[in-house]
Amino acid sequence: MRDVAIVGAGMVRFGKHNDTSFVDLAAKSSLRALEDARMSERDVDALYMASLFAGELNHQVATASALADSLALLPAAANRVENGPASGGSAIREAYMAVASGVHDTVLVTGCDKMRHVSGALITDYVATMAHPIAEYPHGVTLPSLAAMLARLYMHKYGMERKHLAMVAVKNQKNGVQNPYAHIQQEVTMDGILYAPEAEMNNPLVSDPLRLYDCCPISDGSASVVICAAEKAKEFTDTPVILAGIGQGTDTLAVHEREDPTILNSVRVASKQAFERAKLTPKDISFAELHDAFSILEIVESEDAGFFEKGKGFKALEEGITQKDGKFPINPSGGLKARGHPVGATGVAQAAEITWQLQGEAGGKQINGAETAYCCNFGGFGNNVTALVMKRKN
Amino acid sequence: MRDVAIVGAGMVRFGKHNDTSFVDLAAKSSLRALEDARMSERDVDALYMASLFAGELNHQVATASALADSLALLPAAANRVENGPASGGSAIREAYMAVASGVHDTVLVTGCDKMRHVSGALITDYVATMAHPIAEYPHGVTLPSLAAMLARLYMHKYGMERKHLAMVAVKNQKNGVQNPYAHIQQEVTMDGILYAPEAEMNNPLVSDPLRLYDCCPISDGSASVVICAAEKAKEFTDTPVILAGIGQGTDTLAVHEREDPTILNSVRVASKQAFERAKLTPKDISFAELHDAFSILEIVESEDAGFFEKGKGFKALEEGITQKDGKFPINPSGGLKARGHPVGATGVAQAAEITWQLQGEAGGKQINGAETAYCCNFGGFGNNVTALVMKRKN
Repeated sequence: MRDVAIVGAGMVRFGKHNDTSFVDLAAKSSLRALEDARMSERDVDALYMASLFAGELNHQVATASALADSLALLPAAANRVENGPASGGSAIREAYMAVASGVHDTVLVTGCDKMRHVSGALITDYVATMAHPIAEYPHGVTLPSLAAMLARLYMHKYGMERKHLAMVAVKNQKNGVQNPYAHIQQEVTMDGILYAPEAEMNNPLVSDPLRLYDCCPISDGSASVVICAAEKAKEFTDTPVILAGIGQGTDTLAVHEREDPTILNSVRVASKQAFERAKLTPKDISFAELHDAFSILEIVESEDAGFFEKGKGFKALEEGITQKDGKFPINPSGGLKARGHPVGATGVAQAAEITWQLQGEAGGKQINGAETAYCCNFGGFGNNVTALVMKRKN
Repeated sequence: MRDVAIVGAGMVRFGKHNDTSFVDLAAKSSLRALEDARMSERDVDALYMASLFAGELNHQVATASALADSLALLPAAANRVENGPASGGSAIREAYMAVASGVHDTVLVTGCDKMRHVSGALITDYVATMAHPIAEYPHGVTLPSLAAMLARLYMHKYGMERKHLAMVAVKNQKNGVQNPYAHIQQEVTMDGILYAPEAEMNNPLVSDPLRLYDCCPISDGSASVVICAAEKAKEFTDTPVILAGIGQGTDTLAVHEREDPTILNSVRVASKQAFERAKLTPKDISFAELHDAFSILEIVESEDAGFFEKGKGFKALEEGITQKDGKFPINPSGGLKARGHPVGATGVAQAAEITWQLQGEAGGKQINGAETAYCCNFGGFGNNVTALVMKRKN
């Protein structure tokens, strides 16, 4: 198996892109990543498109073929990979195997979704179809409600308080101010979303105990990375980033079937695979990008990925360890909370953010001296998760 | 890169499955394939689900996770691959690379779509979204109309007549009578669909020159294969089939941009890759399963895959060469014409049919002495095609 590297990354700012079609949006980040890799369309052997809702929300299927045509990659192989909100991580994993196997040398991965032109209710419903089709969905279970139940259970079990959830939002929105690609580039304060008399109005209830600022925004957006055989990486960039390890794990669809729902076993399985393949441990990692679609997820993932003991993630947060200038920064990009969550794009955006960090090109969000990084991309309600470990050099 | 084999196959009869949910239908063929491979769910490292319309027509996304849960494959990796009607071929190709790379040893591939519960108009519209979103779709171009234009152009250029199209239907529906999994198990005659006074009523116009019997039926269905490292194949079956070569090629989305639209360049690219990897040529192949969603496609694909000279495919058909007992049988299973076309399932069904043939287990449709076979799975209107070359032993 060959080593695999990322040699280019590109993104469009997440937010509203009403005037850009789905394929044009995907093409924009793709062209930026190819330019970053000093790569022409002739150099691309294959394309992976990550999208959850191309057909459902944009009335276009087989979008990988459309993007390959739009970018003039023909006759390169082109496929769409869908794994719920972890589609981006899964597409990177497919690209990794395509290169590792020797079938392809250079692969473009683009994650894209456009969600702002339809109602939030429609999206919440479609997202909820990832819940169990008999045991959950027909009873009105939505993803925000599953996250809320996880938060309640975790609070009960480990003594976390409401303020810790708010700290995730405050930290990540602060980080997002430095991210030119973030949908939301605005700080919030503990006072403004939790303590002030008007806080309850500012930060209305979504699903108790989760409030508006515990939830990521719904966004349009696209992100791309160019993946190639590590042995050829120097043809395309002076600063390749090694995709050292990658993993994927599934868990029960119905959350109540898990022995302890505060444990995200899929995160554990995926992370263990990624670390083992990378021959690294959580202690070796400089920073992490986690899938904070809901504030509680950042805390629980930080434990199950192996960075903190079970039940201690919120304490690390409280102690400032996960701040951008802390001992172990989490979501220096602002995470999904600030960057936004165009579902299929998120996993690719995480890899793009890490690429820039490890290249020393992250600008105002740069973590000084970052040598290694981890990210996880959370599908369904934790029933299908991917994890990546990346490092500066081999 | 390791050699890769198919060690089990399973299918449900294509047709109407109103009383079975999407995931349950997919689980049925999956369990049959696992049983065929004498494999328990504990032995499966990863699942690939091929589906074009799970979300759009069945209101369920992230179906790979749902199927992994239903089959108790957890924590195996699970992803959905979508490449229009070639989703099945693409999923097999991903599985091939996952095994060839050494990341996985055993992979289940299941293709499934359920389409019978919605109107044909809705399906025709959704399928048409694979056409070019500016140059074709808004002008009312549908896939049947693109196939009709290809047929007209081919007739004009090579002297093919209407009767040759009907011969495809007659041959394939005859073959389908021997296929217990075929949606349509009924012979038709040249007289009945072309020459008799009532033929025009029996076989109404769809898009001139294509008539009803030139088009495959819309079906519910699911098909599965189990793929594993060739070196471990004997643990699971006495008769592994080698996935000797696999290829994929894309072409322009807008058909009018092709220099000669009677040439399916994606079929040529995908086939060339598959043959080169297999170190075989079209002359070495015992029989083929082609993607006859429309009768004209079988003829044109048989040329661009390399079995007949350009413009001579319809003559080979007329001479009986492609009959089940001819020198080079095409679609002994009945093809999409008789088996039906639950879009995401088709590419996997082709591989399953070939597996049974090369194992000598094809029953009434058995091609005696078959040692090698080829299939192609046609996505969009030829803008994204996969090709497989399979053989009996290494």
